Amino acid sequence: MEFFERRTRDSFAAQPAMQTIGATLAEVGEGRVVIEMPYDGKLTQQHGFLHGGIVSAALDSACGFAALTMLPPDSGILTIEFKINLLAPARGDRFLFEGTVVKPGRTITVADGEAWATSGGETKRIATMTATLMTVLGREDVKD
Amino acid sequence: MEFFERRTRDSFAAQPAMQTIGATLAEVGEGRVVIEMPYDGKLTQQHGFLHGGIVSAALDSACGFAALTMLPPDSGILTIEFKINLLAPARGDRFLFEGTVVKPGRTITVADGEAWATSGGETKRIATMTATLMTVLGREDVKD
Amino acid sequence: MEFFERRTRDSFAAQPAMQTIGATLAEVGEGRVVIEMPYDGKLTQQHGFLHGGIVSAALDSACGFAALTMLPPDSGILTIEFKINLLAPARGDRFLFEGTVVKPGRTITVADGEAWATSGGETKRIATMTATLMTVLGREDVKD
Amino acid sequence: MEFFERRTRDSFAAQPAMQTIGATLAEVGEGRVVIEMPYDGKLTQQHGFLHGGIVSAALDSACGFAALTMLPPDSGILTIEFKINLLAPARGDRFLFEGTVVKPGRTITVADGEAWATSGGETKRIATMTATLMTVLGREDVKD
Repeated sequence: MEFFERRTRDSFAAQPAMQTIGATLAEVGEGRVVIEMPYDGKLTQQHGFLHGGIVSAALDSACGFAALTMLPPDSGILTIEFKINLLAPARGDRFLFEGTVVKPGRTITVADGEAWATSGGETKRIATMTATLMTVLGREDVKD
Repeated sequence: MEFFERRTRDSFAAQPAMQTIGATLAEVGEGRVVIEMPYDGKLTQQHGFLHGGIVSAALDSACGFAALTMLPPDSGILTIEFKINLLAPARGDRFLFEGTVVKPGRTITVADGEAWATSGGETKRIATMTATLMTVLGREDVKD
Repeated sequence: MEFFERRTRDSFAAQPAMQTIGATLAEVGEGRVVIEMPYDGKLTQQHGFLHGGIVSAALDSACGFAALTMLPPDSGILTIEFKINLLAPARGDRFLFEGTVVKPGRTITVADGEAWATSGGETKRIATMTATLMTVLGREDVKD
Repeated sequence: MEFFERRTRDSFAAQPAMQTIGATLAEVGEGRVVIEMPYDGKLTQQHGFLHGGIVSAALDSACGFAALTMLPPDSGILTIEFKINLLAPARGDRFLFEGTVVKPGRTITVADGEAWATSGGETKRIATMTATLMTVLGREDVKD
């Protein structure tokens, strides 16, 4: 396993929030990550679909980890901001969250995210995101 | 309790995702809602702070419920999109998520969100959001 | 010329702002529009590059006209909101602004935009946008 | 005149795009700037109101200059991204664009913008923006 993949998988495993929502890292490439999540009734809104906020949490992570794959060692990534459009209700039994780096940079990385729901055999795009991330050195990512 | 408050509290109670992340409805006014959440180690990122995606999920809900307080009966609310800026790490033992309607409308409502973290006695703003929401009638909110 | 193209070209021609910034409609397809603009020293920032605000104005238009191509007759389009990431300085002698519909809808349309700068023979992506648009009927688009 | 105000006014004066759209700097405070613009038929959309793209261009500038007022000497400001919600048609004879720093930072500054239209004696809010800006040193702001 190459460095960028090992670091990404280690970082993902160190995030309790991802385990709590049942997310796993399905694919890790340079500049592209796919997170997978099964349906979970505990994460739904009032109609039994996946809550939009949970969709955004998983997609934000996919963008962040995609950015992380392209960073030099000894650096970390911080989400500055993101924007999400919820295109359709998150109805399905399995969800995919794909993050792709649009523009890598020394300080700023821009990544796009796409969320997909699989219901029966059909897959449908349910959300798109654009995220802006900042490279941080050492433990700078935890400073205020 | 007035209609708008009862509807908002009922709708909040019907969202398993909010209970799963430990969120409660602290305040409900016309056009303004505050959601509260204690620190929970299961919802953190790798440094032990609240995951940015969870911050966005709670803040998205605060904006949505704020919009809901201003809608006529027989209508529901759907988040079309939102944008969040994460201003500081979500370090704290208690978090507040405030949603406020900026512009109500028949079809489109715009709401702003602000997230606050309390650590010791100090409260700090950790995120701002702008969300665009759409009024839906009947069960139209669950259609594709 | 088909209806959707004629309507789009007529609407573009009726916007003084587009003529003032020297923009022309280079391509019109169903769900996709390309706007073109030459370099103009009157529209620059302090370093002689195209002002980011002008990039956003042209890209916003490209998204709006892309949405318009997919609407039924007797309806118009209104930009509710957009988000733009400025990826690189707008340095070039010619600029292209491409708008593409991501998700058409009866009430809400989501479109993506990409801006490109051509300098010498080289073309570079300088900005990406996501816009949310609303269908309006009759003259409803001018109401408050 | 203090340094921050002189620098902001000099920088504004060096932007041909601002002069082309008839914008002037009405107020300059630390962390807050107001840009003013009269109605101009050359900058309208098809209904004779100010084009939404021009509103975004002026508001983007207000956010950028607000950020600039808080930077140390020898540094410049670059817009990374912004999001704008167009709340109402830009109908009026005079427009105000107010930019306010929400969170200053060494590398990243977040600013909010509000646009107002005055028509007769009535003033109405027509747009809100959130912008993310990056501090750049020396001429780094013109690099790719």
